[in-house]
Amino acid sequence: MSRADNANPDLFPDTPFATNPPPELPEGGLRVVALGGIGEVGRNMTVFEHAGRLLVVDCGVLFPEDSQPGVDLILPDFRAIESRLEDIEALVLTHGHEDHIGAVPFLLKLRPDLPVIGSRFTLALVAAKCKEHRQTPTLIEVTEGRRTSHGPFECEFFAVNHSIPDALAVAIRTAAGLVLHTGDIKLDQLPLDGRLTDLAGFHRLGDEGVDLFLVDSTNAEVPGIVAPEREIGPVLERVIAGATQRVIVACFASHVHRVQQVLDVAEANGRKVVFVGRSMVRNMGIAADLGLLRLPENLLVDLDEALSLPDDRVVFVSTGSQGEPLSALSRMAQGEHKQIRIRSGDTVVLASSLIPGNETAVFAVVNGLIRLGANVVHQGNAKVHVSGHAPAGELLFLYNAVRPTNVMPVHGEWRHLRANAELAISTGVAEDRVVIAEDGVVVDLVDGTARIAGRVEVGHVYVDGLSVGDVGESTLSDRLILGEGGFIAITMAVDSSTGRAVAPPTLSGRGFSDDPKALDAVVPLVEMELSRTEAEGITDTHRIAQAVRRVVGRWVAETYRRRPMIVPTVIPV
Amino acid sequence: MSRADNANPDLFPDTPFATNPPPELPEGGLRVVALGGIGEVGRNMTVFEHAGRLLVVDCGVLFPEDSQPGVDLILPDFRAIESRLEDIEALVLTHGHEDHIGAVPFLLKLRPDLPVIGSRFTLALVAAKCKEHRQTPTLIEVTEGRRTSHGPFECEFFAVNHSIPDALAVAIRTAAGLVLHTGDIKLDQLPLDGRLTDLAGFHRLGDEGVDLFLVDSTNAEVPGIVAPEREIGPVLERVIAGATQRVIVACFASHVHRVQQVLDVAEANGRKVVFVGRSMVRNMGIAADLGLLRLPENLLVDLDEALSLPDDRVVFVSTGSQGEPLSALSRMAQGEHKQIRIRSGDTVVLASSLIPGNETAVFAVVNGLIRLGANVVHQGNAKVHVSGHAPAGELLFLYNAVRPTNVMPVHGEWRHLRANAELAISTGVAEDRVVIAEDGVVVDLVDGTARIAGRVEVGHVYVDGLSVGDVGESTLSDRLILGEGGFIAITMAVDSSTGRAVAPPTLSGRGFSDDPKALDAVVPLVEMELSRTEAEGITDTHRIAQAVRRVVGRWVAETYRRRPMIVPTVIPV
Repeated sequence: MSRADNANPDLFPDTPFATNPPPELPEGGLRVVALGGIGEVGRNMTVFEHAGRLLVVDCGVLFPEDSQPGVDLILPDFRAIESRLEDIEALVLTHGHEDHIGAVPFLLKLRPDLPVIGSRFTLALVAAKCKEHRQTPTLIEVTEGRRTSHGPFECEFFAVNHSIPDALAVAIRTAAGLVLHTGDIKLDQLPLDGRLTDLAGFHRLGDEGVDLFLVDSTNAEVPGIVAPEREIGPVLERVIAGATQRVIVACFASHVHRVQQVLDVAEANGRKVVFVGRSMVRNMGIAADLGLLRLPENLLVDLDEALSLPDDRVVFVSTGSQGEPLSALSRMAQGEHKQIRIRSGDTVVLASSLIPGNETAVFAVVNGLIRLGANVVHQGNAKVHVSGHAPAGELLFLYNAVRPTNVMPVHGEWRHLRANAELAISTGVAEDRVVIAEDGVVVDLVDGTARIAGRVEVGHVYVDGLSVGDVGESTLSDRLILGEGGFIAITMAVDSSTGRAVAPPTLSGRGFSDDPKALDAVVPLVEMELSRTEAEGITDTHRIAQAVRRVVGRWVAETYRRRPMIVPTVIPV
Repeated sequence: MSRADNANPDLFPDTPFATNPPPELPEGGLRVVALGGIGEVGRNMTVFEHAGRLLVVDCGVLFPEDSQPGVDLILPDFRAIESRLEDIEALVLTHGHEDHIGAVPFLLKLRPDLPVIGSRFTLALVAAKCKEHRQTPTLIEVTEGRRTSHGPFECEFFAVNHSIPDALAVAIRTAAGLVLHTGDIKLDQLPLDGRLTDLAGFHRLGDEGVDLFLVDSTNAEVPGIVAPEREIGPVLERVIAGATQRVIVACFASHVHRVQQVLDVAEANGRKVVFVGRSMVRNMGIAADLGLLRLPENLLVDLDEALSLPDDRVVFVSTGSQGEPLSALSRMAQGEHKQIRIRSGDTVVLASSLIPGNETAVFAVVNGLIRLGANVVHQGNAKVHVSGHAPAGELLFLYNAVRPTNVMPVHGEWRHLRANAELAISTGVAEDRVVIAEDGVVVDLVDGTARIAGRVEVGHVYVDGLSVGDVGESTLSDRLILGEGGFIAITMAVDSSTGRAVAPPTLSGRGFSDDPKALDAVVPLVEMELSRTEAEGITDTHRIAQAVRRVVGRWVAETYRRRPMIVPTVIPV
């Protein structure tokens, strides 16, 4: 039987119900609160507090769901630290993925001189991002094995393996104890760059005594271990060697090792490579500059040259693996890409995961490509992707190395957090020392014991276009109503002294019906209502509007059984 | 290596490009055209034409995607047969799922006396559905082994196994040849009701010579075979026997055999059962009446009684397994169900598939339940679901039994159709006799050869509330714009002879910003523009509106980088 059948029902019953603001942090204690990233996958940001000072680990973005239409990005909620910006000693970044660094410019806007600590590749990506925001942050480069000091926080960095080079875990020592934060982590035992997750280092920390262990939960529900990244190379080799026409490989723009394998196979098969997509071009340029990507001379061509090469002499390495509607790959799948036309016999490889929520978009791309005759290779029919997150089998290695006193699962939805908690317990961590929190839940480590102390408010902070925060739940709720049913606008000009309509009411619907006569039948009802309000001597525009809204709303519910937004406007003249 | 690596790139290159209307059907030929269900999963409806007469197989609905907001259902496009309704001899239904029978009332509205052929359970579900539409259709019950005659079409019915009882495949004999349509099918070799898919019958047809084989493609990408439905019973037994509190099992409301296994386990464990959800109550009532569901005496209780029983004495059998936002299960997961409160230690079983596109909704339910302390068992962590569709391994059995001359994959997106086509070819069907069509593509079987003859127009027909067809692509496009960015309405009253504004313009946004002052800065720009149009002597309300739309649109793009709908209304007074 599986894990779920054996779950202990009495664990963690109280977390969702912690609503009280936390008491003052006891002296000598350490406080931990996530402003994003727990109870969701994305916008990771954890704040540590000790002796009146703060240390922040990661500052990422979350991508919106269907229930958050029109939103570009979701930021961690900075409110809990807004009044304490000067108390922040440093921002530590574990690696360069958007869900860990994407919100850095927004935090730097509040605190431009905040020291930003990270590995070389991570900081190069941050620098590129900050440049777009015209920021020049204070960057402090670290590598595994290094120790740094930030006020009362002593940091030590450890190599970890993930789906981006140069990822780090961070140990944080304070007078309250020793904390280890994995960041995103897996335990590939044959990593392409030979850089293993430092299990021995974790074991040494375990010997010293880890008081609190924050652990990546993303794959805690998945049994077993991840296959080595290097097993993808031979699969790519078979696919590309067997292709007689164009090959297009889509993958994440930060997955340097995946791209490296594509380059190696392309070179071995006498194909040139072209990068397609702004972030792919930028990131691979950075990776090559830093020596993380081996770029054989004369391998790379630009798009014009690629298009002039014979079909069997080129590989396109592209973004768009998640079915993003404006990406090059989506446009190819719809036959709408200006330069790259998919032809029968072309090969497209989606060398990427399928992020939950993107299924419809990704399969639309797959179906479009197949419809045009392409041979589509994806993780559903070939081993062209492995995850970057430790599944259950690997997490057990971590727990057994670290032997923590207290555990706090991070990075995941509730189902992931709970699965991770159960893994911790199975290795011997005491049940009452496993703390499942969620965003805003305040966990205090005092005298070696971690406990939920209360909750601070953490909401969704939306970026829509150029502004941050002015789109909130009320606007989103309106968008959802408008998106479902459109609106009916009724415009009326009335004499402000008598309340008499001085022109016929104008009715128009958008997103309501394709039928131009759809609203004809309600016009007389509106006119009758206006006569009634006039007869009753009503001149208040708001009251007139409300009366008309009621009439139109009732009519549309009865006639169409629909719920468009009803928008009456009364102009006093 | 997997199938995709070996795909033949030269297959089926022309299908998407067939755009010509078909020529007249040659005498003695058979024409096949799907008005829904090929190139998509849902709204299955296939029209067969021979000797001037039509036979329709299935008439289902499709559920909308995110790009079709506010739509309740999508119907097959009847336009191709609207002028030939009297030519239809009969509607044959293969089984009672919504994607095969859901649009029957809409077809009957056009042709109330159309004979509807199907098995007992299928027709009972159709009758219940038609009753809601106040229709009394002409129902003709058939069973496996039966033959019926409808004009030039001779039908023979075969037992098939699926995720609903009483499913049928149909063979159609005409002078043009013998056609076999699987409907939805799998080959469970240990079916709960002992009713095997009639492979021997298919083999006999194969001996006779099947000229065209229409085959369910849904699982053609999935290797292997499906585990028997009866393997779920012991898993449910372990889960329910081990539960100390309430158990809630969610599954499809038509999956009688799944529900039967829940009932049997509940009975064995001394628990009563309550059905939750309108369709669950209705369908299980029908199934019990027809003897398809064994309902032990005194097992069933109503909700009030269930709530008064001790927690370990009841099983709730509920709808909502797809995360439908208004379902009982969703409301329980949000802690908003009026009568059923999830408590720490309750067990929830999602004994169902996860239909692609529903991932976000389903996991929101799972996370909500886990957050409240429930133990959630689903197909990701226990074997509580098996598919109702034949995967590759079972499809091969079908092809080898039938040995068809021509094959037409049905029921599936392009990726499924192509995978199914490749399976057919692997069993020896000639490559040029495998026809991948999509909705509207006309396939003619003439002199024993099936070929694409052209295309008829097949669009999406939307049901939204009470009306059909008035919501079209233009309305949906408006809804998508409104849903992404809301709208800004500008209302202006102008003197119709001078074009002078007689009142200050009114600006209001909905779904645009939570900030009440968000639009303040554009008001002077609108007033300036109105002065300009007045100065230029413009009195045409449409021209004034256009001018103001441009000003506001440019301002919002520059200031916010957003694209709300701009809705100017000019009232002449």
